[in-house]
Amino acid sequence: MKGLTKSMLEKIHSPRDLDGLSYEQLEQLAGEIRRELISTVSVNGGHLASNLGVVELTLALHRVFRMPEDKVIFDVGHQSYVHKMITGRYDRFSSLRSYGGIAGFPKRSESEYDCFETGHASTAISAALGMARARDYQKEQYEVIAVVGDGALTGGMCYEALNDAGNSRTKMIVILNDNEMSIAPNVGALSNYLTNLRISAGWQSAKRKVRHLNNIPLIGKPLYRIIHGTKKLVRSVFVRDSESGFFEALGFAYFGPINGHDLAGMEKAFGQAKNYKGSCVIHVLTKKGYGYEKAEERPEAFHGTPPFYIETGNRIDKPSCPSWGHIMADTLSEMSESDSRIIAITAAMKLGTGLDHFGERFPDRLLDVGIAEEHAATMAAGLAAGGMRPYVAVYSSFYQRCYDQMLHDVCMQKLPVVFLLDRSGIGGEDGQTHHGLFDLSLSLPVPGLTVLAPSSSRELISMLRWTLTQDGPCVIRYPKSVKEIRNRQEQDFVPSRWSVMTGESDVILLAAGSMVPVAMDVYSILGKNTISATVVNCSTLKPLDEDFLSSIPKKAAVFTLEEHMLTGGFGEYVSSLCLEKGFNVPMHCFGVKDVYIQHGNHEQLMRDAGLEAAAIAEKIRKLLKGA
Amino acid sequence: MKGLTKSMLEKIHSPRDLDGLSYEQLEQLAGEIRRELISTVSVNGGHLASNLGVVELTLALHRVFRMPEDKVIFDVGHQSYVHKMITGRYDRFSSLRSYGGIAGFPKRSESEYDCFETGHASTAISAALGMARARDYQKEQYEVIAVVGDGALTGGMCYEALNDAGNSRTKMIVILNDNEMSIAPNVGALSNYLTNLRISAGWQSAKRKVRHLNNIPLIGKPLYRIIHGTKKLVRSVFVRDSESGFFEALGFAYFGPINGHDLAGMEKAFGQAKNYKGSCVIHVLTKKGYGYEKAEERPEAFHGTPPFYIETGNRIDKPSCPSWGHIMADTLSEMSESDSRIIAITAAMKLGTGLDHFGERFPDRLLDVGIAEEHAATMAAGLAAGGMRPYVAVYSSFYQRCYDQMLHDVCMQKLPVVFLLDRSGIGGEDGQTHHGLFDLSLSLPVPGLTVLAPSSSRELISMLRWTLTQDGPCVIRYPKSVKEIRNRQEQDFVPSRWSVMTGESDVILLAAGSMVPVAMDVYSILGKNTISATVVNCSTLKPLDEDFLSSIPKKAAVFTLEEHMLTGGFGEYVSSLCLEKGFNVPMHCFGVKDVYIQHGNHEQLMRDAGLEAAAIAEKIRKLLKGA
Repeated sequence: MKGLTKSMLEKIHSPRDLDGLSYEQLEQLAGEIRRELISTVSVNGGHLASNLGVVELTLALHRVFRMPEDKVIFDVGHQSYVHKMITGRYDRFSSLRSYGGIAGFPKRSESEYDCFETGHASTAISAALGMARARDYQKEQYEVIAVVGDGALTGGMCYEALNDAGNSRTKMIVILNDNEMSIAPNVGALSNYLTNLRISAGWQSAKRKVRHLNNIPLIGKPLYRIIHGTKKLVRSVFVRDSESGFFEALGFAYFGPINGHDLAGMEKAFGQAKNYKGSCVIHVLTKKGYGYEKAEERPEAFHGTPPFYIETGNRIDKPSCPSWGHIMADTLSEMSESDSRIIAITAAMKLGTGLDHFGERFPDRLLDVGIAEEHAATMAAGLAAGGMRPYVAVYSSFYQRCYDQMLHDVCMQKLPVVFLLDRSGIGGEDGQTHHGLFDLSLSLPVPGLTVLAPSSSRELISMLRWTLTQDGPCVIRYPKSVKEIRNRQEQDFVPSRWSVMTGESDVILLAAGSMVPVAMDVYSILGKNTISATVVNCSTLKPLDEDFLSSIPKKAAVFTLEEHMLTGGFGEYVSSLCLEKGFNVPMHCFGVKDVYIQHGNHEQLMRDAGLEAAAIAEKIRKLLKGA
Repeated sequence: MKGLTKSMLEKIHSPRDLDGLSYEQLEQLAGEIRRELISTVSVNGGHLASNLGVVELTLALHRVFRMPEDKVIFDVGHQSYVHKMITGRYDRFSSLRSYGGIAGFPKRSESEYDCFETGHASTAISAALGMARARDYQKEQYEVIAVVGDGALTGGMCYEALNDAGNSRTKMIVILNDNEMSIAPNVGALSNYLTNLRISAGWQSAKRKVRHLNNIPLIGKPLYRIIHGTKKLVRSVFVRDSESGFFEALGFAYFGPINGHDLAGMEKAFGQAKNYKGSCVIHVLTKKGYGYEKAEERPEAFHGTPPFYIETGNRIDKPSCPSWGHIMADTLSEMSESDSRIIAITAAMKLGTGLDHFGERFPDRLLDVGIAEEHAATMAAGLAAGGMRPYVAVYSSFYQRCYDQMLHDVCMQKLPVVFLLDRSGIGGEDGQTHHGLFDLSLSLPVPGLTVLAPSSSRELISMLRWTLTQDGPCVIRYPKSVKEIRNRQEQDFVPSRWSVMTGESDVILLAAGSMVPVAMDVYSILGKNTISATVVNCSTLKPLDEDFLSSIPKKAAVFTLEEHMLTGGFGEYVSSLCLEKGFNVPMHCFGVKDVYIQHGNHEQLMRDAGLEAAAIAEKIRKLLKGA
């Protein structure tokens, strides 16, 4: 991508290198940034649409504010690629999201320009308020800016933070990056409200006039004229709208909306926000995917995308294995044909969880509540109390958001809500904040909560059907992609009973969910070393199969395998029951040790965590030798 | 309290018994209810001020709506006493909050009128929306009403729920019970906003005209004339205020404010809300503690109160032991004299956490963020990233609310935020939702988080001072009241080192925090049985003292003691390390088994959980015999 002549982008080593540029040069730079975004993400995968949308916004931020003295916090953080490129990380940008490379989210260890790490939504205003208060306590002078999408604004934390900030004397700036669609098309009343503000400013017609940047070849031609053409279609000056009751009620001045692809207009607005004495919200309108037609057309698909062909927008690798989410959603759809009580719930993750498949068949029975996991869980409890059968599909890492609601509203009332935890276990390129490594430690201590982990699609299907026969709460955890077990007849789920997958022996591998296929590989490797092992599929993690555990002979060597933190995990749970009951206690538990897993591909990360079949087999061999 | 002539209250067996009553009779009934509230709570302790404030509101609700077909959900639930009295539980009301008696919160198992359990704040709108949706899916006809205090409205879940509800076609009614003060005086911008709505309706002057009901003797004289006198001071008719930008932005119609002590006015308003086609918020103004001068004067003190003398409002029993919270706050104050980085944070629990002591000395360095634990944790992370040293004091059960923020915003960034978990362990009369039994299972799996539990006030003091020398996150858990260890010199905290409290022997009791005094009692009882034991104060729960554990001889019998769920708790954590390292593994872990603990006094609940010294000693004796 990088031509022979030095590009604009190559000359930007710090945001201060932006200072002397003309708007024409800046627009040329914006074009280069877009091309770099598209080319790198087309190879590495990542968050494309959101970053394409904030190119001018990020440039304007860095031109007006003086980072790193001034602090900018990007809510959810996946839109920080442009920020990374112009803060001294362009030379490493091709390593984006790859093992050992730069992270797909802000990272304090990477750069002093990343002042606060984000990954989960709706945290930035809280963090910014804290930093702004720290500034005031220390009598320092700098600006703190939170950049928040309209999607993230559906999260309650934003409101809690606005409510606190709006009543304090601490000044902070909130930039509302409104692309009318965060991850999925926005939901909720506030979204309508923002639409009204947009309409009042004539943005609807502006949008229609935006020409697609990818009608011109991606390489070589500057994009600035095209972008320039969209300028001044909406308010590009700093207009205070006193009619905005929502933000004003929360003590914030509201300014906008302004065109988020008009650099000069934004700079003017940000400059005035800097001079404004109080806290304010600046409403900036951007277009997700701006400048790449494929992403503009399908911003959801290009929210988080695998590698793709730039010309067609098609994925390079067709997924080799089906997604657990789609199997779940298809099964739920089938169940819903005969059971009208079933309702599916997502917190702005219809595509990610596979529930789009359900929504196609039952649009009225799929509820998208916005990025609001707390509300999702308690609303599900309300549905269940009212006689329905709610299924809440949520990523394991976002399940962390609704712990109290799961415990207090669902489980204490023994309501039949089923939590479907997608992306459980070690994730991949999204890194530290997105792994699903804590859901068992959240779930296992909760009285009355059944905890399941399927090892095959057939097992998940029968598991889901079984949940309808139950009256209490249930959690089912699974990773993103199904790794079917080779050369093996799949079995139906048998509640509370573990099943032996191989011949019986005195080396017993108790494997949870995604570790069953790994345990089968361990079994093969051990077999080559003339160690015969028994693989046990522990599909019910709670309650434990006490009959099975009690039947294990004393001379056997027991091992547990899970894709979860060891502390609070399945192995610890098994060990503790065995100790209490006097059963044969596991010799060793395989799982994630007490460290944070970073980003990279799943295989590499599993290897690092010691959860690769070869490493497990080797460790078992050694332990048996020592025994 | 109950006279010889049958009272009005005795004749109310179900809400339908209210139907035929005149307003004069209803006001007499309201007086009887207030007397019953005051007399029962003066004996049993409980939530007084909030219940005194909602007498007329609850009567109006039950007169207009047809419970249990219609559903009313009381947010936070501590204001449901009046509701309980008039839904067939008056005869048992004297057992309020006592062991085996009726709960201080709504309880589905207690009555069909309690359609949804609450205890933690800000859940009711979510639950009500779920129930209303269930109604619509099933094509049934009933009303769903959420009664939410202005304090609870500071919680982000309310906003998430309003945002979702306001955009749906599902009708629900939100009654905003605005007493200008939830638990503590309200904070946040929205509170100012509500004040403006109040002022616009002339409520400020109305308040001053309210005469105190307790100027008349509590028994005998009907209160209705007094209450009657306050009628019509504010809008008592159904007025729609289109100026309310906040609720309108979220898609709710807003009506009010109306006088929450004017029965007829409220009935009219509720009736019209029933007929209104969309979702609406009815803003009702009530006075916390209404009718009992002591509670009106000090609503915070009478929020949750121990037994008191009705005439004076003074507590009957002076606390026999100091509160951990006050020791914490006093220490933090002393530390703050010489360290200007220290900031204390509470989520609307200044009094409960003891931070009022801190606030007296450093009003500007105490931040009350409203009932917003999520925001509290992330804002603290922002403060820490900005160079401050934040201490977040929060009840263990509400720490459950900010799990993801603790993990994602504080710990993953290794920021020096200290969480001070008050009310850890088994609580008491507040019951199931308020015990602090899950904080270790939340904390121990988190990499880099130090977890501490002091056994004495001196230890807490040195622990707090030590945290300032650390650069990472820390959790300190302690119960409400200090139980000092008899006849023993207290020791300073030694980081990462467990200390032996008695002579050394082969029966080793590893005790965490509040269980150290219990272990000392166990030691005494065992001594009488000629079993010599060693009590170990395990003040650092993470990282575990590996040196100590490795030094335990194989022939020793090891026991762990904790006031926490066994699953995911300290004992399990110790066992798992011992198994991994080949150390001597505990023979038995004492803690809370896999059930929910209900309400009652602490001693009784500890007995039920098998955590009383005598029971522990007996169990150890038996286990040693069997060994």
